[in-house]
Amino acid sequence: MALLSVLTPVLAVILCLVIGFILLKSREAPSTPPVETGSKANFRPWVDQDLQDDTEITAGEDEDGDWVDISEEDLLHVPYSPKRYSEEMMLQRSQDFYTLMNERRSVRFISPDPVPQEVINNVIHTAGTSPSGAHTEPWTFVVVSDPEMKHQIRLIVEEEEEVNYRQRMGEKWVHDLAKLRTNWIKEYLDVAPYLILIFKQTCGILPNGKKKTHYYNEISVSISCGILLAALQNAGLVTVTTTPLNCGPQLRLLLRRPANEKLLMLLPVGYPASNATVPDLKRKPLDDIMVKI
Amino acid sequence: MALLSVLTPVLAVILCLVIGFILLKSREAPSTPPVETGSKANFRPWVDQDLQDDTEITAGEDEDGDWVDISEEDLLHVPYSPKRYSEEMMLQRSQDFYTLMNERRSVRFISPDPVPQEVINNVIHTAGTSPSGAHTEPWTFVVVSDPEMKHQIRLIVEEEEEVNYRQRMGEKWVHDLAKLRTNWIKEYLDVAPYLILIFKQTCGILPNGKKKTHYYNEISVSISCGILLAALQNAGLVTVTTTPLNCGPQLRLLLRRPANEKLLMLLPVGYPASNATVPDLKRKPLDDIMVKI
Repeated sequence: MALLSVLTPVLAVILCLVIGFILLKSREAPSTPPVETGSKANFRPWVDQDLQDDTEITAGEDEDGDWVDISEEDLLHVPYSPKRYSEEMMLQRSQDFYTLMNERRSVRFISPDPVPQEVINNVIHTAGTSPSGAHTEPWTFVVVSDPEMKHQIRLIVEEEEEVNYRQRMGEKWVHDLAKLRTNWIKEYLDVAPYLILIFKQTCGILPNGKKKTHYYNEISVSISCGILLAALQNAGLVTVTTTPLNCGPQLRLLLRRPANEKLLMLLPVGYPASNATVPDLKRKPLDDIMVKI
Repeated sequence: MALLSVLTPVLAVILCLVIGFILLKSREAPSTPPVETGSKANFRPWVDQDLQDDTEITAGEDEDGDWVDISEEDLLHVPYSPKRYSEEMMLQRSQDFYTLMNERRSVRFISPDPVPQEVINNVIHTAGTSPSGAHTEPWTFVVVSDPEMKHQIRLIVEEEEEVNYRQRMGEKWVHDLAKLRTNWIKEYLDVAPYLILIFKQTCGILPNGKKKTHYYNEISVSISCGILLAALQNAGLVTVTTTPLNCGPQLRLLLRRPANEKLLMLLPVGYPASNATVPDLKRKPLDDIMVKI
């Protein structure tokens, strides 16, 4: 009994140590959270801090900066000798193209007048001539003309936009809301003869079923959107560049697009309405955007 | 003494609990690492997991998806009635523009022949007509024609590219390297009459000196690059879209660009060399990139 009495504190200490050890172990598990492991996977010690932006994060290790991959290098190389204009012709063409593109404006008032499908086919085909990282052509252009589907899209976009306006846009918006002429009502989503929803394919599926990362997919698809905007303007059509917040997953499901595609932009397309207006804004002069060295 | 004997296990338990508590506390500190706090700052509970991609991370809370901000809404609205072509004319124009753009190829063999500066001015001016998030126009086009500066750029790019090839591109590249026709030698950086380096302005500086975030700056600048590529093609000039890995900070310092600017792309520009070749690749047919609903 005396021995037991002497041992009791020892046993108590051992018991406490065991309990303490179990507690410590149980704490360790949540200290390595399952989320944010991407930061570890993306860790590349040679990337300068200055460059840790979107470009670098989307850039892969097995990607040359030249947007060419080995499969392309395996291809036959063929001569390329496009038409060469005289200097006068180049000057005239570049001036004319500037004049045409400078007339482009983002237009929110779109006419319901029908537009030939063939013209839409041509502008999408033109967008598809864009360069892309390793020639992955990581874009899907969903062209919606069905009135019921356009209305479903409108309902999703407006519901999210209303929440954006009412709840998400922070206090500094509250006193400014009265000044806003536009709000979460997007009539053009019903009215425009076409809605073009542009999806970026974040990865591709190889013939063997494996995934293949599409490096620079967002930059590539954005470049193709630039060419699409040029093609629309060239055809005399208008649009407004929108990136509906938080609607991507719902619109992707509505349009039955696969999970490797993410919505990048939504462009309502048509003729401008006869009473269309645009804000009287100016563009920066050339000297403000160009530096010559 | 009997009392002490009885209390000893109790004291031992208390001591263990205190030690255990201290240990637990000391473990908690490293379980909230000082790095990756960005994920906390970016945490927005309403964003679907599906949408946590580049677009959403660059999208701000005080940003409408329509790329318009309040300052723009304060502007006078003016009528907008651009030229409307006949359906036949639209069809013809859209077909011609497709044909022109479809002739564009990424060309790595560029002629040293001089190109009029005025043409370059016009294509940059055209790129500046691109839409941008909240009309921030977050782009700087640095046009380099000075031979010494071009050579400095080449040295920086080639040094980094060589490290890319030799060290960073992983084992699977090693056995493929022999097949590669291109390597880290970028002769076009010396030869092309112009190098256009496109910087995205990640934020702007307001007149009061405060910083203003440029939402969607990467998408905006990529769209403007798409319009730039269209303008170059229209003028009969060629380029290759490159995103030099890890060279951004060095090139930014070399070109004396401010810290709010990040290099997005580098385009060598000129006529194609007389012996220029391109890989014999095909583009996806229209049905593979367009979905009609």
